[in-house]
Amino acid sequence: MSKFCNINSFKLSKTSNSERNLALTLISKSVIKNMNRILIANKKDVQLAKKRKLASNLVDRLFLDENRILNLSKEIQNISKLKDPLGKKLSETIRPNGLKITKVSVPLGVIAVVFESRPNVTSDVASLCIKSGNSVILKGGKESKNSTETIISLIQKELSKTNISPLSVTSLKDYSRESVTQLFKMDKYVDVLIPRGGKGLIKQVRDKSNIPVFSHLDGICHTYIDKFASKEMALKVALNAKMRRTSICGATETILCHSEIADAILPELIEKLSKSGCKIIGDIKVIKYSTRILKAKESDWSTEYLDSIVSIKIVKDIFEAIDHINHYGSMHTDAIITKKKKMADIFFKNIESAIVMHNTSTQFADGAEFGLGAEVGISTGKLHARGPVSLEGLTTYKYLVSGKGQIRN
Amino acid sequence: MSKFCNINSFKLSKTSNSERNLALTLISKSVIKNMNRILIANKKDVQLAKKRKLASNLVDRLFLDENRILNLSKEIQNISKLKDPLGKKLSETIRPNGLKITKVSVPLGVIAVVFESRPNVTSDVASLCIKSGNSVILKGGKESKNSTETIISLIQKELSKTNISPLSVTSLKDYSRESVTQLFKMDKYVDVLIPRGGKGLIKQVRDKSNIPVFSHLDGICHTYIDKFASKEMALKVALNAKMRRTSICGATETILCHSEIADAILPELIEKLSKSGCKIIGDIKVIKYSTRILKAKESDWSTEYLDSIVSIKIVKDIFEAIDHINHYGSMHTDAIITKKKKMADIFFKNIESAIVMHNTSTQFADGAEFGLGAEVGISTGKLHARGPVSLEGLTTYKYLVSGKGQIRN
Repeated sequence: MSKFCNINSFKLSKTSNSERNLALTLISKSVIKNMNRILIANKKDVQLAKKRKLASNLVDRLFLDENRILNLSKEIQNISKLKDPLGKKLSETIRPNGLKITKVSVPLGVIAVVFESRPNVTSDVASLCIKSGNSVILKGGKESKNSTETIISLIQKELSKTNISPLSVTSLKDYSRESVTQLFKMDKYVDVLIPRGGKGLIKQVRDKSNIPVFSHLDGICHTYIDKFASKEMALKVALNAKMRRTSICGATETILCHSEIADAILPELIEKLSKSGCKIIGDIKVIKYSTRILKAKESDWSTEYLDSIVSIKIVKDIFEAIDHINHYGSMHTDAIITKKKKMADIFFKNIESAIVMHNTSTQFADGAEFGLGAEVGISTGKLHARGPVSLEGLTTYKYLVSGKGQIRN
Repeated sequence: MSKFCNINSFKLSKTSNSERNLALTLISKSVIKNMNRILIANKKDVQLAKKRKLASNLVDRLFLDENRILNLSKEIQNISKLKDPLGKKLSETIRPNGLKITKVSVPLGVIAVVFESRPNVTSDVASLCIKSGNSVILKGGKESKNSTETIISLIQKELSKTNISPLSVTSLKDYSRESVTQLFKMDKYVDVLIPRGGKGLIKQVRDKSNIPVFSHLDGICHTYIDKFASKEMALKVALNAKMRRTSICGATETILCHSEIADAILPELIEKLSKSGCKIIGDIKVIKYSTRILKAKESDWSTEYLDSIVSIKIVKDIFEAIDHINHYGSMHTDAIITKKKKMADIFFKNIESAIVMHNTSTQFADGAEFGLGAEVGISTGKLHARGPVSLEGLTTYKYLVSGKGQIRN
């Protein structure tokens, strides 16, 4: 077997789409049939977490109820319905000498995912990997160990009824630091490492592993309200971009506003944000709108609050907005609100982020919202997969060259 | 400016295809106009190299004459004629909520290339980078310093007549080890590092740099002669695959032969190879064909000779051939010779290499032969760019999302 690919991943990569879909359907059903087992395991995790006095938002991420398990099962079924990402002809050319060169999609091989509390990452990621013909090694957080291991064992049991080896989806099992450190060094056997969780985890993975990583460290997203913005739309979209859910990476952290529209927009926007519980930090021109606004420090422009806090800055034109975003942003997702197509085009062309938006909420930065199915994460890197990483990001390609005995001169 | 992209690369990425083509045309002409300057600089390099007693094949790589410079100029012109790799719509979907999501190609940003003696790498790589809107930092070998710096200064002079900053193509200038080591750590400013040269250079780059690398360490390529091969084709293709040029990465290093066709093929093949000056190493079954064949050691199957040496092994069937290739190969290029489509399909499906061939010579593993234009190198990695890396491999993409005020529920 290849040095880059273990036996199970090699076998899995050769299965048909219907074999992979059958496995997903079985797993989706098994999750519902075994709901009680999962709930019992999850209860243990939640009790332990409370005993260890984990923060309540972490306990919430950990928690599963009947409804969440139903969703989790539905998500697996949804992934099975996506188009087969393998064996796609990406290009085909016939050379002057008659050689036919076809580029076809193939799985990456072995994916390792290191995640924190959410047990649904287990089934989401395992399903995306099965669908894309990749083996996966899962390493969940200690706090979700019982839930994660239960779900993995259900997946393995169902796989054993199919042509796919149960070992295609494995747990690292050993949750010790040494074991994870060892995983980080297995670049000969693992093709991609995906960290899912907080900044601490991602930084650790990037620093310590020599396996290529798909990740984003920060989601410092911006919404720029242009001089030519519709006021109604600006208010509605900016509020949603910041406040719909403040803890996700696509939440707007900084609102930029064109100076000529600031008086018309900001007083009302600030009131709406304040009313919905958002703390506001502003530059020297913004603080005049309300005594409750705190003056921004330089560091605020590069802070990902992930909370009900927003920084607001007035810019003299679209170019100052672009410079600000390219300087302080994290190449994740940035939006412009404007009625003028020309301004949207300038923004699209000059913003360097993975996702650039016009007249909509940065909270849409998500694989499912993009129609890609679930995502294994969002990447702000430039290589291979950018933005929401889903099935396509889990594939690579090879060239097939067909000849009739041609030799090279 | 983005932390990931310097000002020049940012400006270059915004230029039009015709502006970039104009620059390439000017450079192509300038190389011919300044042929004498290049020849004089090159003469200095060659004299110094001879004085330092560099190996003659290295001196040959270094050497430029009128003809080589004409070719170099033509290659630049050819690159200008390739399709614009930027701003390509890679996909477009309209979501049920009306959001339009378009994926468009954009430059990677800043490419650094570390190469050894060949001065033509300078103009080839610089041209591919200009065409794909990327800035490039070039670091040539000490032995080609005069030639490389002369070509770079010609390029910069022509760029200054265009909208593209002359600093888009720069030399590291300082050829010291410290300076290169510093370059290797500039992952915040350099998006991709491409080593062009021997295994030593590539190993050093991979080990010491934290910048993503496009490279291949080995080109352990195989030609498998199947039971159903045409004898005439097998002889012709295998000989070309090994002996056309033995020093390139796409040269075949091991010939595998199906046991049932071995008696019909191998005696003649061995004779042809021997006559053309090739030393033959064979497994226990192969050595019986000639007393001049050396018995293969285990290490031979994973040796890239890059010379007139071939290892030959008899396999019992196609599956043994596939196992051998996936185990000992380097995921570069492997070929099957067979008349049966079914056998070719099995080979295409099961060989994991970047390039898999049927009835043709592994020596075709080359960007220009693939119709991609010149290449910056061949990658055996699985991420981003695989096989010959040309314009497309030097681009990434961003998502543009257009809405009408949609907010996320």
